[in-house]
Amino acid sequence: MKTYRKELTFNLPSRRAFVNITPDVSQAIQESGIKEGFVLVNAMHITASVFINDDESGLHNDFERFLEKLAPEKPYEQYQHNGYEDNADAHLKRTIMGREVVCAITDGELDFGTWERIFYGEFDGKRPKRILIKIIGE
Amino acid sequence: MKTYRKELTFNLPSRRAFVNITPDVSQAIQESGIKEGFVLVNAMHITASVFINDDESGLHNDFERFLEKLAPEKPYEQYQHNGYEDNADAHLKRTIMGREVVCAITDGELDFGTWERIFYGEFDGKRPKRILIKIIGE
Amino acid sequence: MKTYRKELTFNLPSRRAFVNITPDVSQAIQESGIKEGFVLVNAMHITASVFINDDESGLHNDFERFLEKLAPEKPYEQYQHNGYEDNADAHLKRTIMGREVVCAITDGELDFGTWERIFYGEFDGKRPKRILIKIIGE
Repeated sequence: MKTYRKELTFNLPSRRAFVNITPDVSQAIQESGIKEGFVLVNAMHITASVFINDDESGLHNDFERFLEKLAPEKPYEQYQHNGYEDNADAHLKRTIMGREVVCAITDGELDFGTWERIFYGEFDGKRPKRILIKIIGE
Repeated sequence: MKTYRKELTFNLPSRRAFVNITPDVSQAIQESGIKEGFVLVNAMHITASVFINDDESGLHNDFERFLEKLAPEKPYEQYQHNGYEDNADAHLKRTIMGREVVCAITDGELDFGTWERIFYGEFDGKRPKRILIKIIGE
Repeated sequence: MKTYRKELTFNLPSRRAFVNITPDVSQAIQESGIKEGFVLVNAMHITASVFINDDESGLHNDFERFLEKLAPEKPYEQYQHNGYEDNADAHLKRTIMGREVVCAITDGELDFGTWERIFYGEFDGKRPKRILIKIIGE
């Protein structure tokens, strides 16, 4: 069994953003030399998400409105977590979107459906945040 | 380490449906010959879900109402994604329900609690859609 | 490839609760002797969750209100599942929070960001319920 580990870091200029990291994950798989196995991709921060969906800007705007409806950012004082912080909504939004994805690797590539793309979901940006890619297989 | 890969395809007659695929996953594990490891089961489409819950029709109706409350199908024009499509709600519903499950394999079988069952969740049906089963272990 | 399996059991005195199980998972990794690989931690019951977030009581209260807003416990009769049971809301709450986490193991330890902690989320307590820890790697 082989394993491979890589971190990505993003410092996004806005509080919330979605970034397509599929090319980064594909590159890590190439670097690993692993042909058959699993790749785990997870946010290392609890106010961010890694998820799979469509690379379509209209849908990303729909996600923004959907998440703001379910867990609105403001008023900050609606959340007990926001004593010294203002990011309680980011913890809730990340929960809806998910922390991690596990994807199959087949023949040395991401084993994906036509429209599957991996996104980093930032919900409390403007500072450096890390994503972990861990690959196991052969 | 051994790996095994299998696809399932469903062409469901309704826009939304839940299908118990536990027997299909168990059969794939048998076919793999893998006794100890992990099985990943994921939708290969971004308007569908694989999740674990109860095989109880009343609960499935509760899921339908819950998802329609959080991400209603209509009016279609409430979503920016719905310029040429009408399935933005399906992308959101699948996000709530989840893309994938990872399950343990122990002694050649799904290592499950009493009531755990794996479901395919369709949110934009009436066409062929694929599910990936990937198994790694020994 | 090595594998290791362990169950945790909790019998919590309240209907809903969050328990930090990070030390239990770390201990299982030590017991396994596995230095590089993946650990799967999942609820074996479909009214409970395993998720990763912050060990901060204010945030946990925010989660309680968030979940009660999206899938309220009462009135029980709003759910079709509640013919002989009263826990439909627990099935829905667990869906939002997630069934499982998959975490990387690197150098014999949980490969975590600074604030990541693994929680057991109970949504229908007052009885013994099980969590599965399954580790694969080398």
